[in-house]
Amino acid sequence: MSVDTSHSLAERSFDRALIHSLLKHVGNPRISIRLWNGDEFQVSDERPVACMEIRRRRAALRLLRSPSVGFGECYSQGLIEVHGDLLAFANEITAAITRKREGRYYGPKLRSMLHAMNANSLTRARHNVHHHYDLGNDFYKLWLDPRLVYTCAYYESPAATLAEAQLAKLEHVCRKLKLRPGQKVIEAGCGWGALALHMAEHHGANVVAYNTSTEQIAYAREQAATLGLDDKVKFVEDDYRNIDERCDVFVSVGMLEHVGLANFGTLGSVIKRCLKKDGIGLIHSIGRSHAQKMDPWIIKHIFPGGHAPSLSEMTAVFEPCKFSIIDIENLRPHYARTCADWLRNYEAVTDQVAAMYDEEFARMWHLYLAGSSAGFQSGTLQLYQVLFVPHGNDQVPWTREYQYQGQSGRA
Amino acid sequence: MSVDTSHSLAERSFDRALIHSLLKHVGNPRISIRLWNGDEFQVSDERPVACMEIRRRRAALRLLRSPSVGFGECYSQGLIEVHGDLLAFANEITAAITRKREGRYYGPKLRSMLHAMNANSLTRARHNVHHHYDLGNDFYKLWLDPRLVYTCAYYESPAATLAEAQLAKLEHVCRKLKLRPGQKVIEAGCGWGALALHMAEHHGANVVAYNTSTEQIAYAREQAATLGLDDKVKFVEDDYRNIDERCDVFVSVGMLEHVGLANFGTLGSVIKRCLKKDGIGLIHSIGRSHAQKMDPWIIKHIFPGGHAPSLSEMTAVFEPCKFSIIDIENLRPHYARTCADWLRNYEAVTDQVAAMYDEEFARMWHLYLAGSSAGFQSGTLQLYQVLFVPHGNDQVPWTREYQYQGQSGRA
Repeated sequence: MSVDTSHSLAERSFDRALIHSLLKHVGNPRISIRLWNGDEFQVSDERPVACMEIRRRRAALRLLRSPSVGFGECYSQGLIEVHGDLLAFANEITAAITRKREGRYYGPKLRSMLHAMNANSLTRARHNVHHHYDLGNDFYKLWLDPRLVYTCAYYESPAATLAEAQLAKLEHVCRKLKLRPGQKVIEAGCGWGALALHMAEHHGANVVAYNTSTEQIAYAREQAATLGLDDKVKFVEDDYRNIDERCDVFVSVGMLEHVGLANFGTLGSVIKRCLKKDGIGLIHSIGRSHAQKMDPWIIKHIFPGGHAPSLSEMTAVFEPCKFSIIDIENLRPHYARTCADWLRNYEAVTDQVAAMYDEEFARMWHLYLAGSSAGFQSGTLQLYQVLFVPHGNDQVPWTREYQYQGQSGRA
Repeated sequence: MSVDTSHSLAERSFDRALIHSLLKHVGNPRISIRLWNGDEFQVSDERPVACMEIRRRRAALRLLRSPSVGFGECYSQGLIEVHGDLLAFANEITAAITRKREGRYYGPKLRSMLHAMNANSLTRARHNVHHHYDLGNDFYKLWLDPRLVYTCAYYESPAATLAEAQLAKLEHVCRKLKLRPGQKVIEAGCGWGALALHMAEHHGANVVAYNTSTEQIAYAREQAATLGLDDKVKFVEDDYRNIDERCDVFVSVGMLEHVGLANFGTLGSVIKRCLKKDGIGLIHSIGRSHAQKMDPWIIKHIFPGGHAPSLSEMTAVFEPCKFSIIDIENLRPHYARTCADWLRNYEAVTDQVAAMYDEEFARMWHLYLAGSSAGFQSGTLQLYQVLFVPHGNDQVPWTREYQYQGQSGRA
């Protein structure tokens, strides 16, 4: 392909060295590399799980300058292509990076403490939410389950479908909370309203659900009207910090990731002023096994202002307000599966997404869904459901057996 | 009783003022007071749950100087008597103090951080353990269950007896760990060996169990011989810091309370070097909903070197070594019940205890058991069971339903 002069030979061996150093940086994953000049090689002796084609020299330079943002952007723009299964590729890269970073703890921990001083303002928070959730309901309808639940599902058995598992998740949350008819529920960050509607329709709860996403709130209100649940569920377009009414149950599924470490104490205070003494609460959030900063590409393009906290970081919501944590469940494998199901749905509609937006956007979301599944698969990401009560509430369940009564997955 | 001169009247009203200030300090509990001079009064308008008799003026002064140590010592020495139910009295005092301290968080949190710098040395740790656990096996046999399990029991139903609940706890731990025949288990802090023996006898595990208490280890070895389990269970008289062998399962029930905050990271490192990549671990410990120092009387007379950590403090065991916490259960109500059961057993043998030791020791332990039950009842104390795996272990249970299969309490 290229002319083999001594000059280009030197350049080729320089390029190879650059790529080698880059691959070493990410733990020498089992992938093969194809360069813009036709060069092909691999750094691991093991059979490659996929081939990464770097189609332009400038893409390699962007990778070197910023591996995460560089890769994400170049992939989205088609300057980098992955031949083979994108999820297998993402799993391999994530696992290699995880092995590579095995020893690191205190650096990221320190960064997390500094990060805790950087709060999301009301305006900034609104902007961040708009960036992700106001992409258009039609976009999410293409690949989410019919209820539009955009958080970790709960597969009672591995054979469950995504739709079954999302319904089971709604039930799992209600069961944990021992939700009873007539109870007043506040939901902070309600997405398209699936949980709020389910609580009202199937458990007789009175729900006030908050969200700052205009499109999601509009959709949720429509659903409430269609289902005749307007009198049981109120959808409020507002920030969680403005919630100020008493409730029996406080629930938040998939919002904490957007709150930002610096506001964890504020969220705790909001819950404290709302939750009755004999009330109960549940927070469901993506997390980490130990403090780590978010991937820079994710922050730049997918979740501005987002943070996945370690349990130690999460306790800042609960301990200053003296909540008693009664149960924590880690649903990590379920989120790996959820993302893989979303990915499969998404792959079937990529062309439609490209037509709605453009090719770059479609590729960006493809990578994001594959990368997220890989994050949960490798343990880089975790999913915590934290059940808690105000200090001194004695109305706690005696054992957790009640959570598993009547589950369809029972052997 | 006393002569009513104007001098003694002044003295009496001074004494009353002192006691009033003291009772205000502990949140004006619903108790009545009887003084050495025959004076009787109460500070709350509500019906008193018990009467505290302060039999000597010097006891009142000791209470003022140091409410916790003063009360504990004076009660033990009979200078203070409680008329009525000691547990009801302890519950009331604990609840009043908890209400009183509602707002405090950052002071205790800061003290906890300072405390984290003060490590229990090997010698000190051994001395502390000796202080509590080498009181004589005969003493504990008087009021514990037949297996001598001296940690929180698990009452599958509230109707269970202490012996049933301790057996159920051993099973609950084994079930959580998915213990299989032939697996190698390391137990750190094995008490009288009940869990290690149960794991070997009923689950076919090979257990190496560590403890620094000479008397407990001797008893546990006898039990192993009696049960013919010498080949399956090895009891080692040594500190957890010296454990250095590979295992499938690492378990520690009721030891973390004695480790001291400063050594949490060390414990994590010990587990990391022992636990295989596909292994699983469980730590069961008394804890707090938020950082608080231990009661000074408990530290002085009952558990020198002890500390009940908040979850935030506990993460120092897991996060630096990147363990993934997959499940946390808070068994607080079960420990309130366990202590109440111990207390009832103990009250039936108080005379025997006084004969074995002396009256002061017998009263001290009576107060300690009542106070502990009150601590768990009020939420001052919590009980956490933390299940964890090494980072990247994918052999985690799919849901927690397996923990509730075949429980006798099932409806």
